[in-house]
Formats: sequence, structure tokens, C-alpha cells
Amino acid sequence: MATKIISYEKPKLRNPVFIEGLPGVGNVGRVAAGYLVEELKAKKFAELISSHFMPIVVIPQGSQVEMIKAEFFYWKAKERNQSDIIIMIGDSQSADPEGHYEIVEEVLKFLKRLNVKEIFALGGLNIGVPTERPKVVGAVNDSSLEKKYKKYNIVFDTSQRVGSIVGAAGLFVGLAKYYNIPAICLLGETSGMPFLPDPKSAEAVIRVISQILNLKIDVSKLQEKIREMKEFMKRVEAMQAQLLQPPASPTSEKEKLTYIG
Amino acid sequence: MATKIISYEKPKLRNPVFIEGLPGVGNVGRVAAGYLVEELKAKKFAELISSHFMPIVVIPQGSQVEMIKAEFFYWKAKERNQSDIIIMIGDSQSADPEGHYEIVEEVLKFLKRLNVKEIFALGGLNIGVPTERPKVVGAVNDSSLEKKYKKYNIVFDTSQRVGSIVGAAGLFVGLAKYYNIPAICLLGETSGMPFLPDPKSAEAVIRVISQILNLKIDVSKLQEKIREMKEFMKRVEAMQAQLLQPPASPTSEKEKLTYIG
Amino acid sequence: MATKIISYEKPKLRNPVFIEGLPGVGNVGRVAAGYLVEELKAKKFAELISSHFMPIVVIPQGSQVEMIKAEFFYWKAKERNQSDIIIMIGDSQSADPEGHYEIVEEVLKFLKRLNVKEIFALGGLNIGVPTERPKVVGAVNDSSLEKKYKKYNIVFDTSQRVGSIVGAAGLFVGLAKYYNIPAICLLGETSGMPFLPDPKSAEAVIRVISQILNLKIDVSKLQEKIREMKEFMKRVEAMQAQLLQPPASPTSEKEKLTYIG
Amino acid sequence: MATKIISYEKPKLRNPVFIEGLPGVGNVGRVAAGYLVEELKAKKFAELISSHFMPIVVIPQGSQVEMIKAEFFYWKAKERNQSDIIIMIGDSQSADPEGHYEIVEEVLKFLKRLNVKEIFALGGLNIGVPTERPKVVGAVNDSSLEKKYKKYNIVFDTSQRVGSIVGAAGLFVGLAKYYNIPAICLLGETSGMPFLPDPKSAEAVIRVISQILNLKIDVSKLQEKIREMKEFMKRVEAMQAQLLQPPASPTSEKEKLTYIG
Repeated sequence: MATKIISYEKPKLRNPVFIEGLPGVGNVGRVAAGYLVEELKAKKFAELISSHFMPIVVIPQGSQVEMIKAEFFYWKAKERNQSDIIIMIGDSQSADPEGHYEIVEEVLKFLKRLNVKEIFALGGLNIGVPTERPKVVGAVNDSSLEKKYKKYNIVFDTSQRVGSIVGAAGLFVGLAKYYNIPAICLLGETSGMPFLPDPKSAEAVIRVISQILNLKIDVSKLQEKIREMKEFMKRVEAMQAQLLQPPASPTSEKEKLTYIG
Repeated sequence: MATKIISYEKPKLRNPVFIEGLPGVGNVGRVAAGYLVEELKAKKFAELISSHFMPIVVIPQGSQVEMIKAEFFYWKAKERNQSDIIIMIGDSQSADPEGHYEIVEEVLKFLKRLNVKEIFALGGLNIGVPTERPKVVGAVNDSSLEKKYKKYNIVFDTSQRVGSIVGAAGLFVGLAKYYNIPAICLLGETSGMPFLPDPKSAEAVIRVISQILNLKIDVSKLQEKIREMKEFMKRVEAMQAQLLQPPASPTSEKEKLTYIG
Repeated sequence: MATKIISYEKPKLRNPVFIEGLPGVGNVGRVAAGYLVEELKAKKFAELISSHFMPIVVIPQGSQVEMIKAEFFYWKAKERNQSDIIIMIGDSQSADPEGHYEIVEEVLKFLKRLNVKEIFALGGLNIGVPTERPKVVGAVNDSSLEKKYKKYNIVFDTSQRVGSIVGAAGLFVGLAKYYNIPAICLLGETSGMPFLPDPKSAEAVIRVISQILNLKIDVSKLQEKIREMKEFMKRVEAMQAQLLQPPASPTSEKEKLTYIG
Repeated sequence: MATKIISYEKPKLRNPVFIEGLPGVGNVGRVAAGYLVEELKAKKFAELISSHFMPIVVIPQGSQVEMIKAEFFYWKAKERNQSDIIIMIGDSQSADPEGHYEIVEEVLKFLKRLNVKEIFALGGLNIGVPTERPKVVGAVNDSSLEKKYKKYNIVFDTSQRVGSIVGAAGLFVGLAKYYNIPAICLLGETSGMPFLPDPKSAEAVIRVISQILNLKIDVSKLQEKIREMKEFMKRVEAMQAQLLQPPASPTSEKEKLTYIG
């Protein structure tokens, strides 16, 4: 099946910017992007499903089954100093290495058709220790972006702190270059519990992206939002625990089936 | 080779419903669907083979080789309050994660061509402890189905009990939505021995599906049917035990070959 | 790259039969088919390479690099009671599960174009204990073949002895059915050392296939032939030992590279 | 996404030769080819990216993200006894077995379009023990090449020393045969620390290739060049350490994400 993007609406957008937030360390990207969706009341217009996600469905509430998926939302600029925005949030990253490349590239082709002019990939940066004032570290696919954004509260001696980035956030910035789309990775420092949302780090990332895009975002409801997320994340986590064995092997197959089939 | 469906006949069916039962926890889905095939004397009309199944053939009896496969049967309504039915039963689920998506999607395309109007995915729900009176839990891809079926003996506070569903049964319900086919997962509670058929749970599922589809199914022969199944299941199980190692590694390769080549 | 068959010649054959022998338990199939190639002085006309084989090249002698591959040979009938024959021998089976399906199916498509009328898949059957008089067990994709061949020295109460067959030999017989090619698996009993050639078992298989095809094969040189094979097999074995780790993981990657790059 | 080659320029070359150097044992091939690029001041004209590389990006310095990639450079002959040269150097080999085949074949198709007349694949040969005077061992895809190059300082009793070659270097030589391109593997003896550059072995390989191609290469700056490389290699190494688990399994997934996401 590979990867599919299903559109429910063709929004008319003027050179929108793209913001990406998938689960990862401290869930910083996912929480920050998800919060922007809620605060901006962005409108959902497309979904991405992929055979590179875990072969499960989740039932967040009631009896309604949900695929593991990513969702696309759009928001139209209200003021002259703002841009139209497309935001992608997701339940999971690829469960296999090749999938990261495929999913990111399918999204980039989709964004190209939507005339996206710039990409902001949000994520967390594991600094190993808790921090009261998490910084936001920037990584770019074009040096001009460092100049453009150095006036904001972003740390750009990235190489010393990061070295490399695993998964979708990094590939969005790296692959976007081949699509001639300027892209920047905004990474919030965190102590790096996987999937355990780090509100402070997410808040730092939200502040930077809001400044850049001239958005007035009230971060006071962030804690509450995170509480809501946790239940769903626990579900996904529970499944991942189930799938610890290499999925190709019948053991894990059996494990899965002992849970349900 | 991916996944192939080979049709032996083009049955003329009027908006049939589809019932799916593959091996899984308590083998509930496989046993229930297999029993319906026998009781309804449904006619086989197609087979599915896939490179996502284990690379083995089975010799259930005599000297005749059988591929690991899924089979499609049809049954034509006898009375005005019944529907034409297509039933899929299989020997195995995908041996790799991507395969679950591919197999389910190939089947959905096939069902779309057959004008299937509704999907019933049968499976087991591992509740960890033995139960005298297994309940049947429902998960749907459209909330209207909960209303439609709540008058039957189905538990719909699914989220609390299930959380998520691994493998084909869940993906059938989740992916069917993108094909505009209403789908419901009927999961019989079981103590969850993998592949060890749980007759009580299968019986509970058969009773619910029979009521919904106005089928008169005599469940008295279920025990006997399960005895027949066991021999074949043992064969498949034996092979799976053989393939415990990650199949990509030469060790398991060697293991397999020590068994036969 | 998937799987490719490169033809060096388009032999004119009249409804040839096909004999397959790949490495496996006791190397029975590979040894038996390889010996037939030599004794019949069959002519090589095609090669199969596949990204499902290990990513290595072998240097059997001198400085000449050889891909891991399978080779196709043909032999034209000398007498009226004989058939034209195509023989496939190979260095390896697929290193991943899907590969078994893909390689077998690519070969079947190739055979269909060559009007192959029947398939003989040769292999070994691990009976766990050494045997002085190894039997040859048969598994078929059409019951008529059991009748056709029961007059030969083949044991057909296969189900009790075998149960299932892993890898190419079994899939050739199983998949051939979908190509309407009658196929029989001839499995020589062996104590089942993987890759350690079992001359007695190979000899038993050669005797049966020679009888069926009215070939006069002198088995006296079998031992010698096996000695020649061993050196090459050791090479392949050495590499497989190297690749024990799941190849996808950097450990094994590193392992490989520590050996050579 | 598979594998892509992006060209930035269509160089006009007259029957160029191709030199390949990817990371591997002692990093011999990568170091030797990289040094040639610098000494010849070869011009970059294309890049290769692949979903078979690790799903990471690296930040070698500043804030600029770099994909894991291979790069193509060209150099035009200055004298009548020289050939135009294309050199490929890369950050990594494929992270999965199939990828080695796909990447090598995509490059061979690319080289065919550039009328490459001969291939030199550079690598290291792990002899287990340190050596003061590393020899260069040759493996070829056509015996005529042994005659052609035996006058150079190359050891050709390859079979006894090597037996087999894992990864890209060997596949370049093996697969080139199917593209009718003569190819030779030049392997420098090394004690075989993975990725730890072995300057002596690289120097031996550089001397041989320079002699063959009539290049005047000053090896005095090799040590310095290796120092520069190390920092970047450490980055890639760090990531590989992170990805030790089979990448398909959520553990490693999680591991990655704990590092960054």
C-alpha cells in the first residue's frame, strides 16, 4: 500500500508555510504543532496513511476505530504580516527505516502542489538532563535561513549540540532542499523521555514559531491540552510495547495476536 | 510477487455483505468464519496468495501441497430478510507489518468490485482470564453502525476494553472507511491462547453475526469442526515455531533449511 | 533491483521438463541437480540474479568475481522416450522471506515462456537420524501426479513425514499450480546437516529422476563431484556465518564491513 | 523513495573511467577516493540519496543539515596518457541487504549513460593483523583484466586471500559484467577496524590507482586529510551506534526518538 494522502478539500492558500509535528523525544514537535492547530482553530483538509506505520488501529473513545495516521490542517492569514499555514500532526513515525524517507517525500510532493514556500519542522533535542529554560536549536537546509532567523530566540551553533537528527523532522529539512523549499528544524531542548510530553520545551518552540509567523498564541492552556493527549498517546505506546520484537518474526506476530486478532 | 487474488468464478451477488476470519487470538475469527462456510455450504470462488505469508507450503493430507492462502466463498440469500454473503477465511496473517496493510487493501479493492455493502471482521479479544460467558465487543468505522447494531448482544464501550486492535481485523475496519464501506469488528472475549481455538468465544460471535444476518446456524457441531481444524493449525504452528528467528537473517534461513529445503 | 533472468541463448526445446536444485538440507537438491548437469553435459543458457540474495560476491578461484546466482542449463532428448530438459542450480536461496516467492515466480514466468510441461523440484527431507537407505518422498500440486509416479520408488504418504516444506522447492510446486504446470517435489531423506552434502540421499533422488526421465546416469562419480562442490559451498557458508545478525542492523552492517568493504 | 541520482551538471567526458570509494573496513576505499577528489580538485556534478541509507541527517558544522548521500565528481584528463575520471565517494553503505544491489545498479545505469569504459572499486581487506607494508589485492569481472594489470603492484591470487567480498565494492565488480563494463576491485590490506581510517592501506591503494591512470598524486597530505574526515565519520558512527537494534522494531524506533525526533 505504501503511503497515501487523502484530501477532503482543496484549500485556496497563498504561498503557505508548512509546520510539521510528529511524535518523538519529549513529544515536543507533536505537542507544539497540535497546540497550534487548536489555538488557531485550523481546519482539517487531508489525511496520510502508510503501510510504514504499525499495522494497528486505535480506539481513542467509544467504539470508533481510528487508523494510525497523520493529519493536515490549514489556517488562512488574518493580518497582512501573517502567512497562510499548513500544519501536519501525526500519531506515529515510520516503524521501519525506509518508511521515513517515503513518508517525508510523499508529503513534500503534496506540499509542492500546494505551493508551500517554507517548512518548519518541530521536534525535541535530548540534552539528557532536565532544564528550567529549554533553548530552541535551529538546523537549516540553506545557510541564508540562519541569517533570516538569527534575530529570533534560536541557537544556531547546532553542530556542537546536535550532530545529527533521526527520523522525519531531519529528513523534512534535508529532502526539502531537493524540492527547492527552504526548511528549518526547530528543536526544543528536553531531558528526553520518549513520548512523555515535555510542556516547557514545547512552549519554548511555540513561542519561537509564533514570533516568526506573527501569531498571537496563548500558551496558558498547554498543560491542559497535554493532559488530553496523554490518554491517546498511552494507547499508541501500549501497542508499541507489544510490537517490541522485530515485526517480521512470528514471535512478535504471535505476541500481537495474543493481544488481539 | 506481492499479493494476488485468483478468481475461479464471477458470482452474481446482490450487494453482498463480507465476513472475514483470519487466525489470531483464540482463533475466534478463523473458527467462526470457517464454521459459517461449512454450515451455509458456501461455495469457494477465489483464493488470495501473498509473498507476505511465510515462504512455506503445507501438506495437510496425502501428498498434495497447499500454499499458505486465504479463500473466498459466497452464499446466496435464501429468504427476503437475508443478504448475499462473501466469507474470507485464511491460514495465516501477514508475516511482516507492511503485509497487513497490503493484503487488507487488495481485498478491499476486490470487495469494491463485488459491490460489498458492509464488512464484518471477526476476531478474538484477549481479556487475560478464562470466562464462562464471553461477551462480543464491537468496533466500527462509522458511529451510525453503533446505533444500527446496539439492539444486538454487542458491547460498545469498546475503548475501555480494547484500546487498539493489531493486524487484519482492525485494518479491515479502519481502511474500509477510505473505500466508503461501513465496517464493524466483532471480537469475542477469550483468555487468549494464540491459535488455540476457543469454541465458547467463537460460538458467541457466531450467534451475534447469525442474528444480524438472519441466518439459522446450528452451533452443535462447532466442537467437532474445531477438532478437524486443529491438525492443520498444528502444521502451520510447527512451521511458525521454525521461523522464530528474524527471517532475513541467515540463521533462521539455515534453521528453515535444516528442516527441509 | 528485484530479480532478473539474463538469457544468453534462446534454446529451441520441445515441451521440456524442468528440474530445480537449490542449496538446502543435506544439499540434496543442489547436489543431485548439479550432478545431472555434469553427466548430461547440459548447456548453460541463462542466469538469475536477485537483490534477495546476500549482498556479496564470491571468488571461487583465481581473481574472478562471481555473483551469488542461479544458472539455467538445457539438454536435448537423444531418444524417443526422453524429454528435453531444463535444469536450474543455484548458490543460495533467498535471504529474506518475500524473496522466495519473488524468485520462484520469476522463474515460473520464464518457464511458461519456454513451454515447460512439468516441474521436478529436488530437495532433502530432514529425518533427524542417519539412514543407510534413504527413501525419496514425493509431494505434488495435482493428485493425478501421484498416480502417474506411484510405480516409481517414491513414498507418497507425504503428509505424515513432511507436514510442510520451507523455501523454494515447496513454492515451486505450490505456485506452479497457478501457472497450470504439473509439479512434483522429490525429497531425499537425510540426517539434515544444513549445506553439508549428503551423497547417499542425493544418489537416491538421482536414481528416481533418472528412471522417470529415462536417463542413463552413472552415479559413480558423485562422491568426487561433491568434493569439488565443497570448496565453493564453504565460501558461501563463511559469508553466511558473517551475516548472522539481522542484515538491516548496523551491527551486522559493521560486521560485514569489518570483514571487507 | 528508493534511490535517486540528482545531476547538477552534464559533464562532457570522453570514455571516462569510474572510481568508487564508500565507507568500509579501515575506510580504505572512502579515504583513497576522497583523497583523489581533493588532490585532483575534481568537480562535483551529482548526488545520490537513497531510502536504503539510515533515516538521519548530519550537521557536520554550523547549522547546515546534510543528507546521508554519495557524491559524484569528474576530472578531465590533462595529458594524452590519462583518462577522464568520475569519482564517487559516500557517507554510508546501504543499511539493508537489498539496498546494496539497488544502489549499485542505479549507479551502473548512470555510468552507462556517461559511457564509462572501466570501473575501479576501492576497498579494504581485513587480514586481522596489523601490517607495515599492506599489499593491494585485485578482484576482476573479466580475466583479461588480470593480464592487463598484472604488471602493476597488485596481488592476484585473490581467491586464497579473499574468498568473498561484502557490500558495494564487490557488487560493483560483479554487476558491472551485466552492463558490459570491465571492473576491478582494488583492496588494501588492513587490520580491519571498521570505519577507523587506515592511512597506510589507503596510501597503497592510491599508489596503485595513480600508476594505472598516470596520475601524479602527492600522498604527503593524506594524514591531514584523514584528520579532517574523522570528525564527520564520528557523527555517522554515533548515529549507527544509536541504530544498533533492528530498525524495524519499535525499541530502536524509540531509541532513535529518545535521541531526537
